[in-house]
Amino acid sequence: MLELFIGDKNYSTWSMRPWLVIQHFNIPFMERLIPFDHFDMDSQFKQSILKINPTGKVPALTDDGFLIWDSLAICEYLAEKFPEKQLWPQDIKQRARARSMSAEMHSSFTALRSRCGMNIDADLKEVGLKLWQDHSLQQDVNRILHLWSERPQLDGFLCGERFGIVDAFYAPVVMRFKTYGIPVPDNGQRYIQKLLTVPAVQQWIAEAKAEFRFVACEEQYRT
Amino acid sequence: MLELFIGDKNYSTWSMRPWLVIQHFNIPFMERLIPFDHFDMDSQFKQSILKINPTGKVPALTDDGFLIWDSLAICEYLAEKFPEKQLWPQDIKQRARARSMSAEMHSSFTALRSRCGMNIDADLKEVGLKLWQDHSLQQDVNRILHLWSERPQLDGFLCGERFGIVDAFYAPVVMRFKTYGIPVPDNGQRYIQKLLTVPAVQQWIAEAKAEFRFVACEEQYRT
Repeated sequence: MLELFIGDKNYSTWSMRPWLVIQHFNIPFMERLIPFDHFDMDSQFKQSILKINPTGKVPALTDDGFLIWDSLAICEYLAEKFPEKQLWPQDIKQRARARSMSAEMHSSFTALRSRCGMNIDADLKEVGLKLWQDHSLQQDVNRILHLWSERPQLDGFLCGERFGIVDAFYAPVVMRFKTYGIPVPDNGQRYIQKLLTVPAVQQWIAEAKAEFRFVACEEQYRT
Repeated sequence: MLELFIGDKNYSTWSMRPWLVIQHFNIPFMERLIPFDHFDMDSQFKQSILKINPTGKVPALTDDGFLIWDSLAICEYLAEKFPEKQLWPQDIKQRARARSMSAEMHSSFTALRSRCGMNIDADLKEVGLKLWQDHSLQQDVNRILHLWSERPQLDGFLCGERFGIVDAFYAPVVMRFKTYGIPVPDNGQRYIQKLLTVPAVQQWIAEAKAEFRFVACEEQYRT
């Protein structure tokens, strides 16, 4: 049995990625949500996740107790375990492109990540207006918009007609853009609208908004 | 034809990883070393790499002109293109473990990375002694030593008897441990010694030491 350990849907970008993949592709799994409280070693969150995953982080996947502990590695594992579901594009070049984009998200965009923490439930457009003065934030956003603009079809997903791992990796960015009111030109808006048609994305957003949990250490701007 | 674009061997951890893989597995390629000068947009380095890779970063791989632009995505591409070379472990669980460790390296260990920049040619043990007071650096190192200690055989590589992508991902850590004199217990020393027997690792180190290039913006501690 697959068990996917995640954090709060309102805040946890890393959790959102593999959850969207496993949910969208109808892979049977048990969701194990460990609510954030804080991230000191004596927190409820750390005490719980450390029993599963020595990194003390979410997401983590267990397959009959065998641990896979990183969002990208989890998605690769699912892609291998369920090849018929085609989690990556079938064309080797589109697959290489999907992996390049996913790995870039995994290691880059520090300004966007650190300044615009995901907060689906919040409206932080006024904060966003001030943050937008920051050149490094603009650089991150421009790079992402450039990547999106190179998708094969204007009304398609990032690497073709089907939603895949790479779209799940950029879904938290869409959430950040909405929360902080980041200016997005028409081409990028078309991709955002496309992503928001995915039922798994809609479900994650609805469940994030229904959490009604205010986690102080995840709130950079609200009090 | 495969062309691998890399930076200075003395400094570029991201370059070292796919280079070790492509070299160790005897995959024919052309090395394209773009020397670092600085990282402003008007640098020689940026002007050169931007013609190849819009991220402006190394490493980048081109396959008859088709671009793959991230170290992990490059290694996945090579693993797919040359399946007979077995760049990942053949066992699905060891492969999942190798990917979890590689992806963790891709996104984590911020303290080690930011404070102990790779500098193969330098002896910074005195600096390392001071840095070692830092709790977050100790945490990163302890996590890495724990991961290493779980390898299947004491005198083997991280996921079995064969060198693979995951070992290439942790090779820059070995370089940092040596340069900064990070204290490593016997179990970890055995892994370091094993990694240093790999001819591709030896070649990278020799070529790094033969560069004789002092790049000021990569030197945190030497003048």
